Amino acid sequence: MRKKGVLVGLIVLAIFVLGSAIGTSPVFAASKDKPIVWKVQTPWPQALWQHKAAVIWAKDIETLSGGRMKIDLYSSGELVPAFEIYDSVRVGTLDAGHTWSGYSIGKFPALTLVAATPAFFDLLGYYTWMYAWGGKELWQEIYGDSVVVMPVGMLWAEGGGWANKKIQKLTDFKGLKYRTVLIWGQILSEVGASVVTLPAGDIVPSLQRGTLDAAEFSTPVTDLALGFHEVAKYYYSPGLHQIAGFTELIINPKKWAALPDNLKEIVKGASDDALAHALTHWIVADCKAIKKYKDYGTEFIKFPDEMQQEILEKFVDKYNNYKNPMFQKIWKSQKEFLKLYTPYMDLQKVTAKVDVNK
Amino acid sequence: MRKKGVLVGLIVLAIFVLGSAIGTSPVFAASKDKPIVWKVQTPWPQALWQHKAAVIWAKDIETLSGGRMKIDLYSSGELVPAFEIYDSVRVGTLDAGHTWSGYSIGKFPALTLVAATPAFFDLLGYYTWMYAWGGKELWQEIYGDSVVVMPVGMLWAEGGGWANKKIQKLTDFKGLKYRTVLIWGQILSEVGASVVTLPAGDIVPSLQRGTLDAAEFSTPVTDLALGFHEVAKYYYSPGLHQIAGFTELIINPKKWAALPDNLKEIVKGASDDALAHALTHWIVADCKAIKKYKDYGTEFIKFPDEMQQEILEKFVDKYNNYKNPMFQKIWKSQKEFLKLYTPYMDLQKVTAKVDVNK
Repeated sequence: MRKKGVLVGLIVLAIFVLGSAIGTSPVFAASKDKPIVWKVQTPWPQALWQHKAAVIWAKDIETLSGGRMKIDLYSSGELVPAFEIYDSVRVGTLDAGHTWSGYSIGKFPALTLVAATPAFFDLLGYYTWMYAWGGKELWQEIYGDSVVVMPVGMLWAEGGGWANKKIQKLTDFKGLKYRTVLIWGQILSEVGASVVTLPAGDIVPSLQRGTLDAAEFSTPVTDLALGFHEVAKYYYSPGLHQIAGFTELIINPKKWAALPDNLKEIVKGASDDALAHALTHWIVADCKAIKKYKDYGTEFIKFPDEMQQEILEKFVDKYNNYKNPMFQKIWKSQKEFLKLYTPYMDLQKVTAKVDVNK
Repeated sequence: MRKKGVLVGLIVLAIFVLGSAIGTSPVFAASKDKPIVWKVQTPWPQALWQHKAAVIWAKDIETLSGGRMKIDLYSSGELVPAFEIYDSVRVGTLDAGHTWSGYSIGKFPALTLVAATPAFFDLLGYYTWMYAWGGKELWQEIYGDSVVVMPVGMLWAEGGGWANKKIQKLTDFKGLKYRTVLIWGQILSEVGASVVTLPAGDIVPSLQRGTLDAAEFSTPVTDLALGFHEVAKYYYSPGLHQIAGFTELIINPKKWAALPDNLKEIVKGASDDALAHALTHWIVADCKAIKKYKDYGTEFIKFPDEMQQEILEKFVDKYNNYKNPMFQKIWKSQKEFLKLYTPYMDLQKVTAKVDVNK
């Protein structure tokens, strides 16, 4: 009798334990579930640093989640055309996009202010505005509930452009056939340049044929990969029109809602972390590219002080007069930040130039 | 018979499942184990940003690990004296320290080069050297196997100091009773200052009594918390002697070895992530502190160009002549990085000063 009672007890226990194990136990669920896999695409070819930064990010997600989440990462055009990433994420064809807000400015003009900044910010200030002055929240406000967005990488300074003609003042752009985009393109049009928008692959051949006099595209290492130095003699700096920019992670809202809370935190943390890693590695790559240009014989020309001043004032004027409420709301936040940040940075500015290798 | 067989089968199964549950099954172990808790101390009072940055980090660890790891965080002196954190971590009295390498320079002189840098680096360059040029690995080499080390935060620029006397050239320091530390202290001694080392709490009273003529301590927001502006008229900048610095996470090697691989990655990831978060929030706090000084009536004085040049050249000279093989190994790595980085930054430098709020 007693023995039978033990047996029955054990059976009940066995059923209970098995039930838990097979049923809803979160413990077994965690071990039995396959990892959550997201299909993510970038709009860039694999050779560019923009895509390499996404590879660093995907690895971070997998490492931090202990393999519970994996990223199937695709490059430009592999699943959807590069410029359709936003729409594909919105409708759920892609789970997420590791991309650049600049491509969606036509739909959301205020994205201009998070995709990149002219040089009234410096990189550190722009980073600080984004992380500690409400930039992230404003970015989400632009997209509304169409996608979940967070910064996932940072672009450091672009070059001021490549040309075979000398440019010493803003009016020297007059009559030049110049490749660029957006507001910088508008400013140059207004001073008489003939501005054209060409995709990456067509710029270098056009410079070579002379159907283009000048062009800006990206940071030193990206321009190097495309071979600008082989067809243009002069490298201009600084890249006042885009001294820094953020890349974005956009996520389908349903996919985001379905993610367990802890994995949400992992995605956020890995995105912040990958930003720091990719940024520093990118800077090293850009430094090495500049060295290669020098060894190759590229001539470096800095835009004169007055010209820099004139260019940035034109940008401020364009921004102040841009008729879009969300644009103005974010621009106001940036101006308030700069009111505190600029005087602080002026104090910190070091004028000495010490060559430690002398 | 058949029924009995089922019963026996169930009993065997019950014992097996229970055995797994109670025994070594990693699945059950993960759910039943209490979170791993580390006792971690900082050397700072809770009111300072250095400690607040540690709070951000501790929260990051808990969030990213989904509560599997928790940090019991203590501030200055709560468990061990502030300057005994390294030894306490080494022997295991503390699991880890969230501290500053500067406090262990007496034991490991090469830590000078990771604790802080004079202004031949800028903050972004120092960050890049650490993350993308082997800085982390060299830092570990300094400590050997005594502790595991990783960067966990960044100090942004210190002020150039506070005084009630005007300082316009290096020789103006002659005869001044000045509070500072380390190599900057040596340089000022050599130009005739009477250099003293005082702990944080004694500096402001000494300036007030006039037993001290001038002092530097930390970044604007930390100096504000200590009340420097109430006892000194002039705020000097830039803080050439320390334009940026890293804070460190030092971990007892046995505690590190005992951590599951995934939590090791979480600790590394959270440390990198916390660095970015703390840095940007700290910059905002420093910007606000500068605004408060201005409202209070503090007079801001910038060190003249020639003086900046002279100070930095003296630092390079001290560094080049420091007789310690590990110091020289790391200094060589920094010089090699700067050989690529400085020309790149010169190109990117923007001279225009545009007030977007005009």
